Amino acid sequence: VVICSESRGAQAGLYKRRAWFPLRVMPAFQFLPFSALLGTVGFLCVTFVSFWTQHWRGGFAWDRSAKVFNWHPVFMVTGLVVLYGAAVLVYRVPRSWTGPKLPWKLLHAALTLAVFVLVVLGLVAVFQYHGKSIANMYSLHSWLGLAAVLLCSCQWLMGFAAFLLPWSPAWLRLLYKPIHVFFGSTILALSMAASISGINEKLFFSLTNKTIPYERLPPEAWFANSLGMLILVFGLLVLWALATPAWKRPESELLEAQQ
Amino acid sequence: VVICSESRGAQAGLYKRRAWFPLRVMPAFQFLPFSALLGTVGFLCVTFVSFWTQHWRGGFAWDRSAKVFNWHPVFMVTGLVVLYGAAVLVYRVPRSWTGPKLPWKLLHAALTLAVFVLVVLGLVAVFQYHGKSIANMYSLHSWLGLAAVLLCSCQWLMGFAAFLLPWSPAWLRLLYKPIHVFFGSTILALSMAASISGINEKLFFSLTNKTIPYERLPPEAWFANSLGMLILVFGLLVLWALATPAWKRPESELLEAQQ
Repeated sequence: VVICSESRGAQAGLYKRRAWFPLRVMPAFQFLPFSALLGTVGFLCVTFVSFWTQHWRGGFAWDRSAKVFNWHPVFMVTGLVVLYGAAVLVYRVPRSWTGPKLPWKLLHAALTLAVFVLVVLGLVAVFQYHGKSIANMYSLHSWLGLAAVLLCSCQWLMGFAAFLLPWSPAWLRLLYKPIHVFFGSTILALSMAASISGINEKLFFSLTNKTIPYERLPPEAWFANSLGMLILVFGLLVLWALATPAWKRPESELLEAQQ
Repeated sequence: VVICSESRGAQAGLYKRRAWFPLRVMPAFQFLPFSALLGTVGFLCVTFVSFWTQHWRGGFAWDRSAKVFNWHPVFMVTGLVVLYGAAVLVYRVPRSWTGPKLPWKLLHAALTLAVFVLVVLGLVAVFQYHGKSIANMYSLHSWLGLAAVLLCSCQWLMGFAAFLLPWSPAWLRLLYKPIHVFFGSTILALSMAASISGINEKLFFSLTNKTIPYERLPPEAWFANSLGMLILVFGLLVLWALATPAWKRPESELLEAQQ
């Protein structure tokens, strides 16, 4: 409604009143502080998950020891939450609204491909740690995580086939786009739920009577619980930015309707 | 954009083409099958959580035994997920778009008040079960759950003060409405994450070497994991319906801008 009233100069008095606000400029102005906030929270998520596993869980190694597991939360939070969050917001950058869309599509594809690489490394880490002695894929956490990873892979392949292959027909792009957009948010919600249930589960495994139990809330519990809350805040900020109508590429819907 | 092009008869040819679609009728037509789907998933969530606690966790009682805990997941999933999901979608019912808004506001307030009552009962159940022997409020699950409950209470009080008290000023309603809408989705996301981490945690507590361990995936694990996935599907459907621009009350934004 806002975009309509400003860019097409409708006649009703109400629109004239609303058109006083520099509506096209507003998103650009708001997007910068939002990006700074999101970047800060994302940086904190990566820092917190790395510090947690480095300081309290024994650090990293790529062997058959318990240290190989520690790559799992670091790769998953960095990839499927933080980098994924940045990748899905590419088309919300106001600069992407004008000029050719292809460079932004390539950036989106490159970032989500990087997400996929991190996710595969994160999966390898947990399966290598489990080896033959610990069962795989039984907890609700693992089910949610696998659903997120599978959907993310399908999403990348389908997105590539529909939006990057030059010979894909316009009707396919038009039909598939809302599905791609919907699953973009869904995958993030899945990875948030998977991360949070994973952190909760890991703390119950690690903080037992042999150390200081979780229920006594040692510093590690405070720290990792805060990581969970940070992931939630980061994900909600991204979901909110995705759902805000004024931050969507204004031309796309009309251009595609013309095809 | 869609509503604008249809209801105000803009002059551009593109609008004329788009106006062929019965855009005002479409949401009403789509909302019915969506509601049927959402109702079915919500009913399954309540049935699954009740059956899980009744069949595998020993059923219900309101005493000092372990059975009092079983009310906790049932009240929380029924209240803070399913009934809450229904309550936030009140203004998406196409019939609510015309005529006076007050009856729908009262329905929204009544449903969210019922959510609050169920949530308080759910909290009483878990605190009574914990008693003095089990620590409270240490896990990430409990932090997320408490955040959801506190935000939900604030949301109800603020919503009542701003939107139901007849003497609340128009500028307050206009200012507070986007905040209320944003936290409406946020609380649901929090309660989804809390439910999922809670189910995951409960299964690790209950399915140990004394029974059949969680990692052997006994029928209870399959069933409760499926409950977690159902809660996720229900929540995502509600969040998607809330974010869909065409399903929002079309008049409200313009009316409020006039105030």
